[in-house]
Amino acid sequence: MRRITLLTDFGTVDGYVAAMKGVIADIAPAAPVDDAVHDIPPGDIHAAAFTLGRYWHLYPPGTIHMIVVDPGVGSGRRAIAARADERLLVAPDNGVLTRVFEDASPAVVVALENEAFHRPTISATFHGRDVFAPVAAHLAAGAALEELGPTVMDPASLEFPPPERTAHWVYGEILHVDRFGNLISNIPAEWVANAEEVRVAGRQLGGVRQTYADVEPGAVLTLIGSLGLLEVSVRDGSAAVELGVGRGTEVRVRT
Amino acid sequence: MRRITLLTDFGTVDGYVAAMKGVIADIAPAAPVDDAVHDIPPGDIHAAAFTLGRYWHLYPPGTIHMIVVDPGVGSGRRAIAARADERLLVAPDNGVLTRVFEDASPAVVVALENEAFHRPTISATFHGRDVFAPVAAHLAAGAALEELGPTVMDPASLEFPPPERTAHWVYGEILHVDRFGNLISNIPAEWVANAEEVRVAGRQLGGVRQTYADVEPGAVLTLIGSLGLLEVSVRDGSAAVELGVGRGTEVRVRT
Amino acid sequence: MRRITLLTDFGTVDGYVAAMKGVIADIAPAAPVDDAVHDIPPGDIHAAAFTLGRYWHLYPPGTIHMIVVDPGVGSGRRAIAARADERLLVAPDNGVLTRVFEDASPAVVVALENEAFHRPTISATFHGRDVFAPVAAHLAAGAALEELGPTVMDPASLEFPPPERTAHWVYGEILHVDRFGNLISNIPAEWVANAEEVRVAGRQLGGVRQTYADVEPGAVLTLIGSLGLLEVSVRDGSAAVELGVGRGTEVRVRT
Repeated sequence: MRRITLLTDFGTVDGYVAAMKGVIADIAPAAPVDDAVHDIPPGDIHAAAFTLGRYWHLYPPGTIHMIVVDPGVGSGRRAIAARADERLLVAPDNGVLTRVFEDASPAVVVALENEAFHRPTISATFHGRDVFAPVAAHLAAGAALEELGPTVMDPASLEFPPPERTAHWVYGEILHVDRFGNLISNIPAEWVANAEEVRVAGRQLGGVRQTYADVEPGAVLTLIGSLGLLEVSVRDGSAAVELGVGRGTEVRVRT
Repeated sequence: MRRITLLTDFGTVDGYVAAMKGVIADIAPAAPVDDAVHDIPPGDIHAAAFTLGRYWHLYPPGTIHMIVVDPGVGSGRRAIAARADERLLVAPDNGVLTRVFEDASPAVVVALENEAFHRPTISATFHGRDVFAPVAAHLAAGAALEELGPTVMDPASLEFPPPERTAHWVYGEILHVDRFGNLISNIPAEWVANAEEVRVAGRQLGGVRQTYADVEPGAVLTLIGSLGLLEVSVRDGSAAVELGVGRGTEVRVRT
Repeated sequence: MRRITLLTDFGTVDGYVAAMKGVIADIAPAAPVDDAVHDIPPGDIHAAAFTLGRYWHLYPPGTIHMIVVDPGVGSGRRAIAARADERLLVAPDNGVLTRVFEDASPAVVVALENEAFHRPTISATFHGRDVFAPVAAHLAAGAALEELGPTVMDPASLEFPPPERTAHWVYGEILHVDRFGNLISNIPAEWVANAEEVRVAGRQLGGVRQTYADVEPGAVLTLIGSLGLLEVSVRDGSAAVELGVGRGTEVRVRT
């Protein structure tokens, strides 16, 4: 029995997640269900795509990742499922799988048009319960991706701005701010290995360090984070608060 | 082995939920345990009852729903278990099962008086750990409801105000505000199918729409939500913030 | 297959927890994984140690408790695993296991130096994913504690201030404030069984009560909480807010 993971913006207060788990338990009672993330800011598909990128590939082949950050629910947006590097994904077609398609060998994508895999009545506001959960559960119970609907050749994708480089400078930006206030950029470790100068919001932050303990508590530093990207942090504190910046802020590195 | 779901107001910071899971794992190690909801506002039994109503019946027969929103813990309030539509429920007798009793065919309810199913020492403040968790685990492991204690004929229930209607108007109120700021009323879809005028807090909100995408981002709309009830929403925003209202606010619909 | 529990300060927004679960699912797919606590305040090892104390011993023998509250990640701090009262623990060596070592018969502790049980590449910032999760998963899959690395004789521990007593007074302090605003002291029930006078922050709070219902809603009371310790509470309210105090505040009891 395949495992299902859940990424949503539903929070843990209203029972939306429980409704989806109930639907899954009814169809595929032996499938383990992992709570991955439920506190994506409401409707923030960029944050969902970035966050999915952090873990989808760490799960073993056969895992079914279900993503329900779906501000377009009830509109004409498609619902899709995909197979990428032997993992399966079920999501609205709004770009939340962008990172998956970037990371993976060519993915197979289908539109969730076969209503035999949906709940009998589809609400206008909660396809997590009525479409995505039953589809994920049927996949866990052995349905084939190709049964779910016709192939989609043009799934939606988001723009994640690429970093740029000149002879002496790398230009990037902040992609994500995490719970700790770490500012995660789009600049790969390989580009800034021995850089001596990082600039953010007009501040010179020094060179790239190895670890938080290289500076005093409360000091700002830059280092290579767990995604292999340049991050700006404050030891035992929040770089987002200290620098007063967030997603989209420019990061420059002299190399 | 039966599945257990947990609905509490314990949050996810103090280890209260983990203590209950540990007790369950000790008694019924093979029972899957689903986190349903842990962020009910402290002691808010109305929110707990409403939220349980969102999912209890979506889980398959045999599921054990455990509810620990229990401001009367340690007082004389009874602890109960119930069987309703083949699901089992374990909860304080404070009305949190109101929606279950309304939805289900006649339920069987017992008082949790048989101490053989409790922990040996019962604290004054945490019956989730000492009474409800061991009872739920014993049910998962095969105990019969009738072993838990004597039948209760008069379980507590809460008032959920019913909507009313005249020849041309429907009068209801907001029952719940969700994480997205959607205002969920007690007015059923059937009463307001083609209504052209909804009024909340002195504002005329237009007719009942099909989906969020029927209005521009930031606009207020009304539509039928996933519970089959009239909801007031803001597309990509919060109706609770936009209208400045909450639970108990009147909703009028001209039909 | 052994069960793994997770206590972290990662929150539920960024996918850090999901990354660890993915690593575990890859190594030990049949191991049940319980979310214990993910909202420890960032880097608060005292809160982590206290919170772990609430549940670690309620889980059955064989359970693997993983704790990732790790402000020293990437520094020279050791990573350890321990066996205590037949439970296993995996954690940074920063004192988060203090309560376990106090509660348990002598524990066996090893340093996580055997890299065969880690991920091939270790980041500087996320040993939860790269060290603790694979080690916990290998333990769940049957690895022996002693394979993980050499014995540690001096694991780190935190100071939890002991209460003191004179002929007529007991002196303690607040160890923890929970989600409900309950102030949990370090004073054991046995010392204050029939005490008539508790003083906190200059206020005389009366004697030790049996249960919340012994006072009116909104009133302050003291009672013995679920850890067997004296707590200060407000019925249907927050003692932390009402008294304006927190961790470290003195509590005096006349006996």
